[in-house]
Amino acid sequence: MAVRSKTTQRGEEMRALIFDAAEEMFLAKGFDTATQREIAEAAGIEQGLLTYYFKTKKELFEKALERRLQATFNLQHAALQTLLKKTGGKPVVEDVLQAYSNPVLNAVLKGDRGILFAVQLTQIRLPSNTDSELLTAAEALYAPLRKAFVDALVAALPHASRKRLDMGFDAFEAIYFALFTDRRGGIDMPLWQSTPASRKFIVNFGAAGIRGMATPR
Amino acid sequence: MAVRSKTTQRGEEMRALIFDAAEEMFLAKGFDTATQREIAEAAGIEQGLLTYYFKTKKELFEKALERRLQATFNLQHAALQTLLKKTGGKPVVEDVLQAYSNPVLNAVLKGDRGILFAVQLTQIRLPSNTDSELLTAAEALYAPLRKAFVDALVAALPHASRKRLDMGFDAFEAIYFALFTDRRGGIDMPLWQSTPASRKFIVNFGAAGIRGMATPR
Repeated sequence: MAVRSKTTQRGEEMRALIFDAAEEMFLAKGFDTATQREIAEAAGIEQGLLTYYFKTKKELFEKALERRLQATFNLQHAALQTLLKKTGGKPVVEDVLQAYSNPVLNAVLKGDRGILFAVQLTQIRLPSNTDSELLTAAEALYAPLRKAFVDALVAALPHASRKRLDMGFDAFEAIYFALFTDRRGGIDMPLWQSTPASRKFIVNFGAAGIRGMATPR
Repeated sequence: MAVRSKTTQRGEEMRALIFDAAEEMFLAKGFDTATQREIAEAAGIEQGLLTYYFKTKKELFEKALERRLQATFNLQHAALQTLLKKTGGKPVVEDVLQAYSNPVLNAVLKGDRGILFAVQLTQIRLPSNTDSELLTAAEALYAPLRKAFVDALVAALPHASRKRLDMGFDAFEAIYFALFTDRRGGIDMPLWQSTPASRKFIVNFGAAGIRGMATPR
């Protein structure tokens, strides 16, 4: 058992080493141009060892992105759990939205490399079939986090229909993601920077929208 | 003069013919793969004539997209002018947002090819330098429309600061564009379809957000 656990640990360290090198290469050269050989070189390992861990470039990209997304989602999940504990399961809407947006925005402002990679990796142009598979994988990772946040909105506004809160959370997410992509379907978004003022703004705007929509008109 | 005007008219007809063929090719094959030769063939003209009108593939793509964007912006502008006339320059927030979103969503629901092209063309993957130049060009086209809508929000909520209404409109746009891109920074957005219910939802959510944010807290 001790031996097996050591092997697993070595495998995880090797994966982390490869991921770090892969991120640098994908971000510097794009998905199409980066090669497995270059990534192996950057990681200081043989290419055969790299393909032992990740058969294809696509698989490597997918797993590298998943590592960063999962770390990001974990931060958000932890912030929500802290909030729910503090409020005895009865949070207010603004605090729920803040638990979602603050961990990520704080990390961005502090220049956290992991978060920056997660954001940048989601922006990399991929061949469209890879892109849609990746979306499906990211969606599966994201689903439990999303459910936990909508549950918290239901706890905050128990008289509202879950469906409307779900749509309201979607709308909030759209604003939140616009902070990172800095685009509106091809149009630049100059006002949206990750400043403390805009962070507060999206939370208050989102909460006003969600409260306003909580009951049908 | 008559001759010159006839020449101008022929030039415009030729441009429209080329744009139609270019749109089909770009949408079918992507920017990188579509060639000027294929576009000329699809338009039924010599390649020399095509390059007489549009020197580069990039220029052709840019102008083709601009034609569709401008047509879209004109619809939105006309809806706003109608609203302002009807309300004597004192619209309510919901109606302003509807004047922005309804013309486009109606056209999408009716299957209007022009609007569908505008939406799809903004989603085409471009080499990143072309992409950023295109953004700048689209931004310049869009700026007067955006200003007219923020002006209308100022008229609807005269006690609110323009800056906050501007940010509120940004947030509304983020939700609105999410309807078309069907994505949230890499995450799928299953609830957002262009149904009458979701159209009403984004307008009411946006109006609640804007009203809630109209005065600082």
